[in-house]
Amino acid sequence: MKINGYLEHTALKQGMTEINIRDNLELCVAYNVPVIVIPPSFVKYASSLNIKEKISICTVIGFPLGYNTLKTKLFEMEEAISNGADEIDLVIDNSLLKENNWDIINYELAEYRKACEGKILKIIVETSLLSRSDLDNIVNSLINNRVDFIKTSTGFVGGGAKLEDIKFLKIFFGNKIKIKASGGIKTKDQALEFIDAGADRIGSSSTKLIIEN
Amino acid sequence: MKINGYLEHTALKQGMTEINIRDNLELCVAYNVPVIVIPPSFVKYASSLNIKEKISICTVIGFPLGYNTLKTKLFEMEEAISNGADEIDLVIDNSLLKENNWDIINYELAEYRKACEGKILKIIVETSLLSRSDLDNIVNSLINNRVDFIKTSTGFVGGGAKLEDIKFLKIFFGNKIKIKASGGIKTKDQALEFIDAGADRIGSSSTKLIIEN
Repeated sequence: MKINGYLEHTALKQGMTEINIRDNLELCVAYNVPVIVIPPSFVKYASSLNIKEKISICTVIGFPLGYNTLKTKLFEMEEAISNGADEIDLVIDNSLLKENNWDIINYELAEYRKACEGKILKIIVETSLLSRSDLDNIVNSLINNRVDFIKTSTGFVGGGAKLEDIKFLKIFFGNKIKIKASGGIKTKDQALEFIDAGADRIGSSSTKLIIEN
Repeated sequence: MKINGYLEHTALKQGMTEINIRDNLELCVAYNVPVIVIPPSFVKYASSLNIKEKISICTVIGFPLGYNTLKTKLFEMEEAISNGADEIDLVIDNSLLKENNWDIINYELAEYRKACEGKILKIIVETSLLSRSDLDNIVNSLINNRVDFIKTSTGFVGGGAKLEDIKFLKIFFGNKIKIKASGGIKTKDQALEFIDAGADRIGSSSTKLIIEN
């Protein structure tokens, strides 16, 4: 199987320079990886490099803890889109889940969807910290609010993607929302297992290792 | 020595509820701790609780990775202040330091200072990731831009506060900028060592342990 098309190359380390971002973009071009995920501070720079026909630029919003306000996340998202972002990976406010505050969760999701209509919206929920019933509830909200992807993890908190969660999501929601598995996926074997379990995309910083091995 | 007055009680875990925030505020009142540090999403709630005469509310901006844009950080800060924040702990963009982009660093610091004039502004630099010469340069910029405090760490990245860095800062800059030591300070002995080395404030989530032991 051609794995490249499933990958989102993740470059989210703190302290990268413009040269690092360019190197990461060149890696995506060299390996036919369709999406790169970079910090908001580099979206304008990456967009200026004339690689938009080859690679979609994805950025992260409210990352990685998700406890910024709704207004700040909307501002950050709108700025990212005006700077050239094609895809948005937004961290949900975990506190609202803990409080079962579904009215506000649904209101916020609707606002996020509205603010990036026409772009791909992924919501990061940190599946490793959620009960199966929380996960079930949140996926239903994501679907009702026309979110494109559920993304499992930031890679900065908790245990990352688990195969069993991907299988659960695929079986019960696979025809209604896409699944991005991320957090701790570092080898080709792992990536293939996650794709086999139902992941539509794999987010990883180990792109080279995954493709070459 | 009365340690309480040096403490900023840190409540920055992901997934807290309003009840958790209220418990943390009550802990500050009970132990005469003058400052609480909470996520931006809880500033409005904490401000509504009528504890402002007793406790200053501090929040974190661009936290913990610092790679949000200048505009987003300014927006987040201004919203936090209008929600009731008295103090701002803002994470510097580490990439600008790596690129030695001093013109932009100074421009951004001036913007941050201007946007929270009259409030206490602390800039988080993650000292454990910086060379001595980088630290020297950045502290000079902070002082030139009238930043109130240098804060050592987010507690989410790198090695946290080191005694030797506090001593260096105190000896060379102690009369020009205040020092907040944070990241990994969990016991009374540690806190006292950092105060002895020159820290003006200690940021820790282990407030109860530090005061009671």
